[in-house]
Amino acid sequence: MTAPPHETRPAGPGRALPDTQQGMRRRNLARVMHTVSAEGPLSRAAVASHIGLTRAAVSTLVDELIRSGLLRELGPERPGRVGRPGSALAVSERGPAGLGAEIGVDHLAVCVVDLRGEVRARAVRHGTNRGRAPEPVVEELTGLVRQVVAEAEGAGLWPAGLAVAVPGLVARDGRTVVRAPNLDWHDVDLGALLPSEAGLTVDNEANFGALAELWLGEGTPPDFLHVSAEIGIGAAVVVGGGLLRGTRGFAGELGHVPVRPDGPSCVCGGRGCLEQYAGEEAVMRAAGLEPGEDRVGLLAGRAEQGDQDVRRALRDAGEALGIALTGAVNLLDPESVVLGGALAGLAPWLLPSLRAELARRTAGPPCPVSVSRLGPQGPLLGAAHSVVRAVLDDPAAVAGRA
Amino acid sequence: MTAPPHETRPAGPGRALPDTQQGMRRRNLARVMHTVSAEGPLSRAAVASHIGLTRAAVSTLVDELIRSGLLRELGPERPGRVGRPGSALAVSERGPAGLGAEIGVDHLAVCVVDLRGEVRARAVRHGTNRGRAPEPVVEELTGLVRQVVAEAEGAGLWPAGLAVAVPGLVARDGRTVVRAPNLDWHDVDLGALLPSEAGLTVDNEANFGALAELWLGEGTPPDFLHVSAEIGIGAAVVVGGGLLRGTRGFAGELGHVPVRPDGPSCVCGGRGCLEQYAGEEAVMRAAGLEPGEDRVGLLAGRAEQGDQDVRRALRDAGEALGIALTGAVNLLDPESVVLGGALAGLAPWLLPSLRAELARRTAGPPCPVSVSRLGPQGPLLGAAHSVVRAVLDDPAAVAGRA
Repeated sequence: MTAPPHETRPAGPGRALPDTQQGMRRRNLARVMHTVSAEGPLSRAAVASHIGLTRAAVSTLVDELIRSGLLRELGPERPGRVGRPGSALAVSERGPAGLGAEIGVDHLAVCVVDLRGEVRARAVRHGTNRGRAPEPVVEELTGLVRQVVAEAEGAGLWPAGLAVAVPGLVARDGRTVVRAPNLDWHDVDLGALLPSEAGLTVDNEANFGALAELWLGEGTPPDFLHVSAEIGIGAAVVVGGGLLRGTRGFAGELGHVPVRPDGPSCVCGGRGCLEQYAGEEAVMRAAGLEPGEDRVGLLAGRAEQGDQDVRRALRDAGEALGIALTGAVNLLDPESVVLGGALAGLAPWLLPSLRAELARRTAGPPCPVSVSRLGPQGPLLGAAHSVVRAVLDDPAAVAGRA
Repeated sequence: MTAPPHETRPAGPGRALPDTQQGMRRRNLARVMHTVSAEGPLSRAAVASHIGLTRAAVSTLVDELIRSGLLRELGPERPGRVGRPGSALAVSERGPAGLGAEIGVDHLAVCVVDLRGEVRARAVRHGTNRGRAPEPVVEELTGLVRQVVAEAEGAGLWPAGLAVAVPGLVARDGRTVVRAPNLDWHDVDLGALLPSEAGLTVDNEANFGALAELWLGEGTPPDFLHVSAEIGIGAAVVVGGGLLRGTRGFAGELGHVPVRPDGPSCVCGGRGCLEQYAGEEAVMRAAGLEPGEDRVGLLAGRAEQGDQDVRRALRDAGEALGIALTGAVNLLDPESVVLGGALAGLAPWLLPSLRAELARRTAGPPCPVSVSRLGPQGPLLGAAHSVVRAVLDDPAAVAGRA
């Protein structure tokens, strides 16, 4: 895997490939893969009409993709269509696959997704990673990776890359965790600790969660703000179908947007940051609860039972989110805001005050706010799918290895 | 002019052109134009080595650009270089040019910039446009446009497009002013009022100001936040060398980011928006001055003389800017913040408290804040240069008309 699976620039088949005959061929291979992936099964003729190339040109490309094991023929199309029946093409269920992993504050997870987007193998280990050094955590993760890869290999799949979601800021090198406060990790080079023969990309969990929403959510627009939480509050800004990463790779730090500039001190050095009002631990404190594991489950359970302290704490958190999001919406003008991660499970109690705040601070119709259906699964799925997308974006790069 | 002169997606020669042989030729014409524009005068050999094409291929492209009047030959290069002396190429000082216009709250301005980036004709009319209907304002602007175009035509230039900067929100159609509160204009279709034979693009003054900074500023990075003010406070978000526009075209509304959520009511419906603390009229009020024309000149003059009320008002405005920018920097992670427009003239009194606020609310080194050297000239220059860039980005589109 040579191309990074996601970029600041808007996504598009092979956008970064060089502008030569060879680059054009690679871009056209990508167009065929994306078309069959999104619309398939399709005949060669349907692919040709979809991407605006001749049927002869498409046949050459398709033959190459079949030889490489990225596409397969399903046999003749069912009758009833106009013209000579062609053999329908589908994305292969074998061959290159996406290997995704997640280092959470309270869990580790790994999965393999095939080129069709199906999860084919998965492993999870629960238990806190707080205060643990990177080495033993990564060693345990590597064990899970080996187990899941072995299972996938049994089904004829091989990892085209490994993408790892972490709860912290990641440098633009795509391997160094600059700061993960809730793990107490600083400047950890995961590239030196993880097996990287297949190509490694490390990214913030909010970014991978947003990509999952973009690729797997129903009707997700190409411009949206994805807000998620584990202990901290993170956001990812998706513009034109791509992530806005920022100069250092730190864009989306919604948790440190000042909500009440004279409010309580925050670890970032500021005062009255959103995290001081809407972070999981702040909400636990405001509700008079002791922080422990499964904080979201506890809060949701109490709120469901009608606990007034918890409900009030969540209402106040929603209000703070609404104030911070008013600023974000004014700056970015996204088509929608999506609440993901842990926030998705608390949405019933956060949303009313959040939406009210956004509405009363907006001149026109307020930006729509929706709840992710992927919830806490988003980051892991986004990681694995980012590898799959990289294969679809440049099939020629993996074809030789099939 | 068929291609819009600026886009959400990162800028790049002919990025949007179709992926065909013909599109490749057009992209390569653009590469030659951009190379000579940025690095010229250059020999054909130097151009070829710069863009990585063969000298024969470059010669064909150069000949086409010379025939179209976009490039010219300066004669043999001075001796002393290695190899056979070639004729140096330069961008033509005749032919297609950028026509820019600005509708300000207190002025109208028009200018013509040639392909080399030189201002070749200019006209300004001072006087308030507040409360005037769009028709007479546009009629007056059209008079200035005719005058400036006639002057440019005398020098062998013809407008390849007209770009108009306005103090308000512009729809993504690039012609409709959705809201310009300080002109009291709503849903004004400038496309129906302005001569458009050459192709018309209307955009927010903050956006054009940011593009001017990007193209003409010294060492401006490709990712920055440009903050400007006339009466309102606007910002433009530049990412990867392109404008982030937002879904409706309204991105960059920094003036309505909540600074103190329980602060004074704002026209937008919110409370405690930045504009209530750092807008020109808010600062005038805080300093006990009556709003009139040349507000910036008055404030700067008084501050210079040591007026304590004015200095305090500007210090408080800087603090509010620092709070709002902390949120923006956390969300966008830009490489720098640039103060432009009217803010540039007040920078000496705004900057200390602005920078202090940003520093004390940031964990790492705070985002650098600089002051635009273009100041109030930015929007007009950005408008004219956006047309020039559109010609450089797709020279083939104007070549037939030369």
